[in-house]
Amino acid sequence: MKTLNELAELIGGTVVGDGEVEIHRVAGIDNAQPGEITFLANPKYLPLLQTTQASAVMVKPGIEAPGVSLLVCPNPYLAFAKILTALHVAKPECRGIMEGAFVDPEAKIADGVTIYPGCVIGKGVTVGSGTTLYPGVLLYDNVTVGEDCLIHAGTVVREGCRIGNRVIIQPKAVVGSDGFGFAPDGGGYFKIPQVGIVVIEDDVEIGANACLDRAAMGVTRIGRGSKLDNLVQIGHNVKVGEDSIIVAQAGIAGSTEVGKHCTFGGQVGIAGHLKIGDNTMVGGQSGITANLPNGGVFSGTPAIPHRNWLRASMTFAKLPEMRKEINRLKRQVEELQALVKEG
Amino acid sequence: MKTLNELAELIGGTVVGDGEVEIHRVAGIDNAQPGEITFLANPKYLPLLQTTQASAVMVKPGIEAPGVSLLVCPNPYLAFAKILTALHVAKPECRGIMEGAFVDPEAKIADGVTIYPGCVIGKGVTVGSGTTLYPGVLLYDNVTVGEDCLIHAGTVVREGCRIGNRVIIQPKAVVGSDGFGFAPDGGGYFKIPQVGIVVIEDDVEIGANACLDRAAMGVTRIGRGSKLDNLVQIGHNVKVGEDSIIVAQAGIAGSTEVGKHCTFGGQVGIAGHLKIGDNTMVGGQSGITANLPNGGVFSGTPAIPHRNWLRASMTFAKLPEMRKEINRLKRQVEELQALVKEG
Amino acid sequence: MKTLNELAELIGGTVVGDGEVEIHRVAGIDNAQPGEITFLANPKYLPLLQTTQASAVMVKPGIEAPGVSLLVCPNPYLAFAKILTALHVAKPECRGIMEGAFVDPEAKIADGVTIYPGCVIGKGVTVGSGTTLYPGVLLYDNVTVGEDCLIHAGTVVREGCRIGNRVIIQPKAVVGSDGFGFAPDGGGYFKIPQVGIVVIEDDVEIGANACLDRAAMGVTRIGRGSKLDNLVQIGHNVKVGEDSIIVAQAGIAGSTEVGKHCTFGGQVGIAGHLKIGDNTMVGGQSGITANLPNGGVFSGTPAIPHRNWLRASMTFAKLPEMRKEINRLKRQVEELQALVKEG
Repeated sequence: MKTLNELAELIGGTVVGDGEVEIHRVAGIDNAQPGEITFLANPKYLPLLQTTQASAVMVKPGIEAPGVSLLVCPNPYLAFAKILTALHVAKPECRGIMEGAFVDPEAKIADGVTIYPGCVIGKGVTVGSGTTLYPGVLLYDNVTVGEDCLIHAGTVVREGCRIGNRVIIQPKAVVGSDGFGFAPDGGGYFKIPQVGIVVIEDDVEIGANACLDRAAMGVTRIGRGSKLDNLVQIGHNVKVGEDSIIVAQAGIAGSTEVGKHCTFGGQVGIAGHLKIGDNTMVGGQSGITANLPNGGVFSGTPAIPHRNWLRASMTFAKLPEMRKEINRLKRQVEELQALVKEG
Repeated sequence: MKTLNELAELIGGTVVGDGEVEIHRVAGIDNAQPGEITFLANPKYLPLLQTTQASAVMVKPGIEAPGVSLLVCPNPYLAFAKILTALHVAKPECRGIMEGAFVDPEAKIADGVTIYPGCVIGKGVTVGSGTTLYPGVLLYDNVTVGEDCLIHAGTVVREGCRIGNRVIIQPKAVVGSDGFGFAPDGGGYFKIPQVGIVVIEDDVEIGANACLDRAAMGVTRIGRGSKLDNLVQIGHNVKVGEDSIIVAQAGIAGSTEVGKHCTFGGQVGIAGHLKIGDNTMVGGQSGITANLPNGGVFSGTPAIPHRNWLRASMTFAKLPEMRKEINRLKRQVEELQALVKEG
Repeated sequence: MKTLNELAELIGGTVVGDGEVEIHRVAGIDNAQPGEITFLANPKYLPLLQTTQASAVMVKPGIEAPGVSLLVCPNPYLAFAKILTALHVAKPECRGIMEGAFVDPEAKIADGVTIYPGCVIGKGVTVGSGTTLYPGVLLYDNVTVGEDCLIHAGTVVREGCRIGNRVIIQPKAVVGSDGFGFAPDGGGYFKIPQVGIVVIEDDVEIGANACLDRAAMGVTRIGRGSKLDNLVQIGHNVKVGEDSIIVAQAGIAGSTEVGKHCTFGGQVGIAGHLKIGDNTMVGGQSGITANLPNGGVFSGTPAIPHRNWLRASMTFAKLPEMRKEINRLKRQVEELQALVKEG
């Protein structure tokens, strides 16, 4: 529970009304009760400000509502996220190394770490304070996990990989699987050893069942603050810059370098050995087969500028009709040619 | 082992011949032995009816075969599935809570439940009778699992999610991972807490390594009887209606509502915040970016009616030729224009 | 550590210079130190041969460098892989059945097997000598695993499936999940029992979080030497021939038969009940909906010969312009028709 003044300080907002009212929950504007804070997301709900039972309402600047305590904030979406976190997200209880966890005696586990049953922690592993390893987390030898991480159930991190601070990994992600590299050897293939690692920098989030391959040699790197969704595939030696967003089921092939602040839609595929500039956006299901400059928006396979793709896609359905018209024009032109020659 | 009469009763079919013959297995028509039942899937195999060693043959109405016991059924595919189930699928042996399973003392485990080694069951979990948790199933606190479920090895269900009765989950699915929600915060992103749950209704099947994200607030829901294949991604707050089929590697983005009796092909992508009507079919690899009415069939990215897409796709390969013809027509028309003007 | 002569024998190469020099590591040509071997991948780095500190350099035939020990080999990429393996990849230490592993008393575990904590091994399982089961590997009853396999953490193999020798499975793959088969039953679906198995032949590699469904009846088979990348989906009753390569996030639907030496790019989708010939290549994200002959190269959805697809794709972006030109031609032809008739 927090006072409205405390929430205002948290989000850098301004209170209009009673700042000492106590808030214990977030709720929708139509069913909020006393003790709850709600938010006005859409101006069409303005009349509800007069009837809401909520103890306070988050609003954008410029809205007035006599008799209702307001929390005025320039970025209500961000404020909502921060207040929801403050009121609804408890730091996981510290339970230490629990019965049923197998921790190698040579692992270094800081104070304030929770390791649930079913976890297996290898030799030389380091886990920083405040980190929680949910059930069934499997850390191979010499893995490093930083402070205040949440590593959800069933996640595997293979040997030597390094995870920064405040990293969140959803259940069953795989960090450090072998990259996919084989040298042709007669009719078959010889496995190229994958002796590099994966480095996940601070404040990254990795989705459920995502796969991050270790480098052949060197490092596969996910930059600070980047967010990878479920079932994303990251090939060996890929670099993803800071604060990039990769939506579910997208894949990046080996050795590609992605810039900062990029956003890739769901099911995007990016070929290997490319350079993708900063602030690049790629539409869902697109396939990138060439380097991309900074700041572009691309769609399609192979990808082209998004606006071109939208227009071309609209025309695609008309292809059969276009073909008929071309054939009709050919006949008409032939007729004209005959007529003109005759003439 | 069952008699042919018992099988007939099971599937609502009719026996022609000896109903008391005992059947213990299903086999192919060309290698079936006495004691086995087979089926005539294709009329071209009719002659095999005279030579099969099988004790009985499932056939559609209208087929006669003197000297062979027939099980006549209007829907042989369904009958085959039911008989295969009756003869080949044993209910898993009840083994109780096995050594090596970690069950919180505050969990409520019904009689007749099997919990294999490597399972970790949190506080406040409820598991209904007849349910089997295969090795390494990890249930966070306050999860509810109904009766007669098969939860295969390595599946994770996060806090508070609810699973109905007779639900089958293939190995390593993830239920209740955080939805993918972040509010821009300066150059980076602030995590939006995902405080909702996932509800899986009765008779649903979930594929291996599928991911179902918990709602931001409220519920992500998979309707009764729906079947999700391997590696499917379900975003936060998605609703899937009853008896819908989602084939492998398809993904549905956040807040989209899918109707009943839909069928989505493999690798389909559906954007967020859409409404997809009942009985909708979407071809494999298609991308849906707009609401769809009831009962349509769609393909392509962005999707268009399937027939249009088929025709347009056939024409696609001819694009370079069409372009050349347009250029040729342009020259011819220019020549004609010159000739006509001269004339 | 090996002598240069030993490495030459290993790869079938020739030493020019000091064959007795001892080599303990592989390194890049610009930072290699004494005791290390490096390789000249690109002729533009030839001058570095004069300055490298490396004790030896792998080169193609025809390169001379007085004063530097050379290892001349016809296929440097393959030689590099073999030398990297010889110098950097240790056979996993044999640790036996470790505390925290649950092995059914009726399982047959050969000598020289390592089973890490968190593994659960069912009744009637057989594991061959030299195999390592990393933490959390879950083998259902009657699974067979051959010799010298590496089964990485969290992998699940369901009942009765058979894995050959020298197979590598990356973390959390699923082998033997139920195929996706349901018979319509009124408005809903009746599950078709999946009573077959998966057979993985010798020298196969399976990627992280890949899913291989068991056959409905019979066998789903991955042929000797084939390599499947992360998050690949293999439907029930699929056959993959020998030495085929399937890149990440590709999927093959039920009952399709894939030949030998095929290469499928990332996110490829292949429909069910098809025959794909030997030596077929399919470009990333393509969708195959028809049988393919031996030796072709295909792209697109539906796939067409790769060269046609490249040309058609280049033209795609010009569709709106083509449409405008067709409309312009129509007007011009109408004008000409009017003029000619008048004339």
